[in-house]
Amino acid sequence: MSDSDSSTAPEAHEDIMGATYRALLDHGFAALTMQDIADEAEKSKSLLHYHYDTKQDLLVAFLEHLIERGKERAAEHEDEPPAERLRNFVAGGLVDSDDEDWAFATALLELQAQAPYDDAYREQLARNEQFMRDHVADIVRAGVDAGDFRDVDPDATARLVLAAMDGARTERVVLEDDTPEVVHDALVEHVLDPLTVDAEGDE
Amino acid sequence: MSDSDSSTAPEAHEDIMGATYRALLDHGFAALTMQDIADEAEKSKSLLHYHYDTKQDLLVAFLEHLIERGKERAAEHEDEPPAERLRNFVAGGLVDSDDEDWAFATALLELQAQAPYDDAYREQLARNEQFMRDHVADIVRAGVDAGDFRDVDPDATARLVLAAMDGARTERVVLEDDTPEVVHDALVEHVLDPLTVDAEGDE
Repeated sequence: MSDSDSSTAPEAHEDIMGATYRALLDHGFAALTMQDIADEAEKSKSLLHYHYDTKQDLLVAFLEHLIERGKERAAEHEDEPPAERLRNFVAGGLVDSDDEDWAFATALLELQAQAPYDDAYREQLARNEQFMRDHVADIVRAGVDAGDFRDVDPDATARLVLAAMDGARTERVVLEDDTPEVVHDALVEHVLDPLTVDAEGDE
Repeated sequence: MSDSDSSTAPEAHEDIMGATYRALLDHGFAALTMQDIADEAEKSKSLLHYHYDTKQDLLVAFLEHLIERGKERAAEHEDEPPAERLRNFVAGGLVDSDDEDWAFATALLELQAQAPYDDAYREQLARNEQFMRDHVADIVRAGVDAGDFRDVDPDATARLVLAAMDGARTERVVLEDDTPEVVHDALVEHVLDPLTVDAEGDE
């Protein structure tokens, strides 16, 4: 098997990642086949297998690709003040999602549920989660360092924010209800506002 | 098919629910068969099918049974002060879980991931979630009414606490890491402590 980072031409890699995303939207994760992805990419299944031995290899590469996209999005906002970045990040995950985002989240939940039975998924999902934790902790740390936030533990605060967002997103996928909006507002009131409100009084 | 509540003898119902729980621990959800549950119950598969037409019917009844168990547990603690009940509830879901609880959570995550494709699971999971939301909101409301907590919105606060707990539990199942402990401490620091600490000053 070829490693996607070293031997797949960048354009082919981008094409296949885009096709994987669309195939996950259309078919979900459990029912997804290499043929579905080949159809979306308008490539032959054998070409797909030239790059990736198995569906698992391809999906691990796809999860890795999501980190790269996350890094690009993070870089676009790095000049914003920490309080604004954190609020935008929370809103982005909870109230700015559209139907396509939720369809993708549905497929990702299926993949997550498979991770306890599949070390390759588990290990890559752990790398993705570590990227998110570092990203949010960096924002909180920047806010603390700038004196905008109270002197909280950046890592623990990031993990609370992410857990609440993850839980709300999962509830939305499973129950199709208004949890993201409700949890967004409660997270702002109970966690984000108090990070800044008491900054001068508490320090 | 017989309705479990009206025509299954209570002992048989309890036996089958216990067998379903053990079969989920051993096999997970996706791989679970009626035969696995019959084996655990030491009953014939045809007897199981007499009570429940399908695996789906049985698992919906099992989810309903979890609400009954939740009610029993809630009743045991209803004389405790609200602040203590809330802390115990959060600790119960995050730091008091053992290996068996996490194996069960792994099977439940698989079932949750199936809900977007299965209305019967989705509707029953919504009833289970509503029970939990009402339960936690009742505790917060009791704390507000008693003057122990600040004047927060009980429902929104409950949903934030549950989302953070659900997210942390899912991360634990998927990644097998220390998220429940970290999120427990951060939830106490950022959400639970401030519910009480400022009660006198703020009201």
